Amino acid sequence: MAHSSPEHWDQVATVPEVVVTRLPQYVRVLKELAAQGVQVANSQQLGEHLQVTPAQIRKDLSYFGRFGKQGRGYHIGTLLEELQHILGLNEQWNVAVVGVGRLGKAILSYPGFTPDGFHIVAALDNNPELIGQEVEGVAVRPMEDLPGVVQQHNIQIAVVAVPSRFTQTVIDNLVECGVRAILNYAPISPQVPTGVNVRNIDPVLSLQSMTYFLANGG
Amino acid sequence: MAHSSPEHWDQVATVPEVVVTRLPQYVRVLKELAAQGVQVANSQQLGEHLQVTPAQIRKDLSYFGRFGKQGRGYHIGTLLEELQHILGLNEQWNVAVVGVGRLGKAILSYPGFTPDGFHIVAALDNNPELIGQEVEGVAVRPMEDLPGVVQQHNIQIAVVAVPSRFTQTVIDNLVECGVRAILNYAPISPQVPTGVNVRNIDPVLSLQSMTYFLANGG
Repeated sequence: MAHSSPEHWDQVATVPEVVVTRLPQYVRVLKELAAQGVQVANSQQLGEHLQVTPAQIRKDLSYFGRFGKQGRGYHIGTLLEELQHILGLNEQWNVAVVGVGRLGKAILSYPGFTPDGFHIVAALDNNPELIGQEVEGVAVRPMEDLPGVVQQHNIQIAVVAVPSRFTQTVIDNLVECGVRAILNYAPISPQVPTGVNVRNIDPVLSLQSMTYFLANGG
Repeated sequence: MAHSSPEHWDQVATVPEVVVTRLPQYVRVLKELAAQGVQVANSQQLGEHLQVTPAQIRKDLSYFGRFGKQGRGYHIGTLLEELQHILGLNEQWNVAVVGVGRLGKAILSYPGFTPDGFHIVAALDNNPELIGQEVEGVAVRPMEDLPGVVQQHNIQIAVVAVPSRFTQTVIDNLVECGVRAILNYAPISPQVPTGVNVRNIDPVLSLQSMTYFLANGG
């Protein structure tokens, strides 16, 4: 899936990760605007929808080339398509879930992944009682099958739902098998080598952004 | 917990929600800087850590008064304390979990809430088999007990882990009982009246920010 030229590699290397984490939110807002029939928006208007400064938007988008024409704004449809292409959102991705406890089972039954191109095709655990069972149509495989499973299904993304004390070891194993994108549900920040990306699902950050309104009676 | 003066209400009303969602991340970075012994940082330096423009940081913080001295930067310790106070992070919050299926059970056993002041004190479900059971030391109560439970425990925050088709109804019930902060795990965007805040846990956005690196061989 990597059609990378040397220039492309350079480009990827220079885009800060935090900028990339904002782009899916841009895509969401652009989809909403497109659905409302909006055809063109300038960075001021996009900024109002995203609540970021126009300068921030221009800076974020500047990493990927010139989208807007000076003084003319961005064509929503084009920008949306380009961003989806840049983010690889028009591709299909095979995903493995590691850890089939309560959380892993909940993830396997989560209906939100497939419509966006993420297909959970494998589940792994080291619990003998779980191995061999089917959960949501996916057979649970033992952890030692990981290298074979990753290769067989061309898995590039893993969702890790194991207890905190096992998380780093599991992620080390995944990285060894060539997985380079990991979604971690444990409340720790795992270490990974350069070239591997981790995102942490962090409900505490979300809660902390609501207590403001409670504490201030808003 | 609301010590609101009329001016305070005005202030709360004018801070965009998206700005507030960024503040917990500022708090995280400030905590890291403080732990490293950094005492002062200007918006340029903070921006490098957060990967947002200095102008964005100054704008975000300007909603809450003047923190930095012109040309002198921000005092990390003071800014951290102020932001924690503003966000209500020095308070303790009682939380109810609604929906005690796989996901709800996983949430009840999640160790990351308590250290940050969020205490799960109640669990509710409408499944007769679950009602009366104890999960992680919390007794599962029937949904019709909701008004009493909310009042008894002074619950201001709810975590909703019910299937999508029940989510809106459950959230309507919570709002009726006076809950004004809701963390929703279903892949839908529920509607709430003004004055109530919802955050959606959205693993898809996280996955979408990693496919960029996979698609571009980075």
